[in-house]
Amino acid sequence: MSISTETDESARKEQAVTDKVLASFDSTASPRLREVVQSLVRHLHAFARDVRLTQAEWEAGIEFLTRTGHITNHRRQEFILLSDVLGLSMLTVAINAPATAGATESTVYGPFFVDAAPEIPFGGDIAGGASGTPCLVQGTVRSTDGTPVRGARIDVWEADDDGFYDVQYDGDRIAGRGWLRSDDEGRYRFWSVVPASYPIPADGPVGDLLTAAGRSPMRPAHLHFKVAAAGYRTLITHIFVAGDEHLDHDAVFGVKDSLVVDVVREDPGNAPDGTTRNEPWAQIRFDIVLTTGHEE
Amino acid sequence: MSISTETDESARKEQAVTDKVLASFDSTASPRLREVVQSLVRHLHAFARDVRLTQAEWEAGIEFLTRTGHITNHRRQEFILLSDVLGLSMLTVAINAPATAGATESTVYGPFFVDAAPEIPFGGDIAGGASGTPCLVQGTVRSTDGTPVRGARIDVWEADDDGFYDVQYDGDRIAGRGWLRSDDEGRYRFWSVVPASYPIPADGPVGDLLTAAGRSPMRPAHLHFKVAAAGYRTLITHIFVAGDEHLDHDAVFGVKDSLVVDVVREDPGNAPDGTTRNEPWAQIRFDIVLTTGHEE
Ligand SMILES: [Fe+2]
Ligand SMILES: [Fe+2]
Repeated sequence: MSISTETDESARKEQAVTDKVLASFDSTASPRLREVVQSLVRHLHAFARDVRLTQAEWEAGIEFLTRTGHITNHRRQEFILLSDVLGLSMLTVAINAPATAGATESTVYGPFFVDAAPEIPFGGDIAGGASGTPCLVQGTVRSTDGTPVRGARIDVWEADDDGFYDVQYDGDRIAGRGWLRSDDEGRYRFWSVVPASYPIPADGPVGDLLTAAGRSPMRPAHLHFKVAAAGYRTLITHIFVAGDEHLDHDAVFGVKDSLVVDVVREDPGNAPDGTTRNEPWAQIRFDIVLTTGHEE
Repeated sequence: MSISTETDESARKEQAVTDKVLASFDSTASPRLREVVQSLVRHLHAFARDVRLTQAEWEAGIEFLTRTGHITNHRRQEFILLSDVLGLSMLTVAINAPATAGATESTVYGPFFVDAAPEIPFGGDIAGGASGTPCLVQGTVRSTDGTPVRGARIDVWEADDDGFYDVQYDGDRIAGRGWLRSDDEGRYRFWSVVPASYPIPADGPVGDLLTAAGRSPMRPAHLHFKVAAAGYRTLITHIFVAGDEHLDHDAVFGVKDSLVVDVVREDPGNAPDGTTRNEPWAQIRFDIVLTTGHEE
């Protein structure tokens, strides 16, 4: 048997496996599930063939996923982290981005959103004990045609000055997160702390992957937003702090130029919301533009 | 902006994400790891783009993997099961199959091998209390040139008559598994029970996937072999029972024609190993051919 005949024969046997697996999903009741799973099989098999995956590498993959599953709990989502560092999360954002010019751009959700955030009044403080320099964040929520969006629900969450989200601490701490509604002119305003850069959790399998790849686990400082209003497409995004040293190597590829904002440092004194600050503080302006569509 | 310009712009933005992720792995110390991870990123991203993966589908995927991780423990490996039903396991076998004509073919390892199996003597019984009709299994281990392979370690394992492996029962049961060595003429012989068909564990996410796909969870009756000898490539395979109704829709795609063997049913009386059977029994002949290479 010549080498090329052997190769042809191997290719034929491998293709036969793929064909049989694809056919096994032909009777999937949901046409969309069939499409997604058959495409997944095609690409997964093409990957294994392209790299000539060895048995030992297959085992290492099973072991990696097992560790990823076992470190995931109700406070830590290592599969989201894995999707994030492989860029799948950001690609999914790009695929689903509205094409509407002028709308605020989306970025990754991240693993640290939680449903149980407290409602705060207009101008209230979400810090809840999170460490850091007080920071006034304000702006407007408008439609792409300029109409103010009133009553939009604005969820915000961020890490504290030490780089940790509340859920990364022991106990049931809630800090650096909350939600409020835009007022009748579409305005919003809240106090928080200046966002800090932080490493994504690096003591699990995803951290090992980053180490093996010589990649930094750091994310540039940012503040998460989720903005929902009836008749508008729900916006999931962050704002990033201009000048952050990690802007060009975000571990999860979330940075977009349009989302980088200035954090203006201020001396003690009167703030524009009528309060008097006894310590240094900062402020951020961020105007949000929603595009019409289904609230998700 | 015309629709095609919008599409071009979207495609450009999506490609930019993929390019950035690929570049982030450029400094991976191991060239092989770099190759594997960059290929994985390419294929994973191509999958998401091809199906236009929605945010809700991405979330469903994260949830599916999380459930898969949480149901996996030291007695159940749902990630292997997932790889099995997606045909990745069998494809990996095909990719790594030796091209040597005449060698016994490989098939999937499956999730039920355990290291702590008892050694049995030549002609001993591995049933250990597993239910089923007693079955004498014998044959030879030879090299592709016909030379008997002496002292080969032959691990065998199988489900009982109810379709369960020992590790699927509570407690530390060991039954239907064991290992022995081939003798100086390369012969082996052991008693066990006639293999039974069984459903793969279907009460987890992999079972849900099979249900959604209208696929049967059944595997045709089989007996697992792992055969290792110095100077030979370790063989991982099964033998399947001829006539089994599930041969053409094995849930894990493991069947190969060359691995289907006859189970000959016998009345009570003398067996060829010199023992006398008081009940119906059965016998299987299976000759194994190893190919030279590294023991793994
Ligand atoms: Fe974050
Ligand atoms: Fe099995």
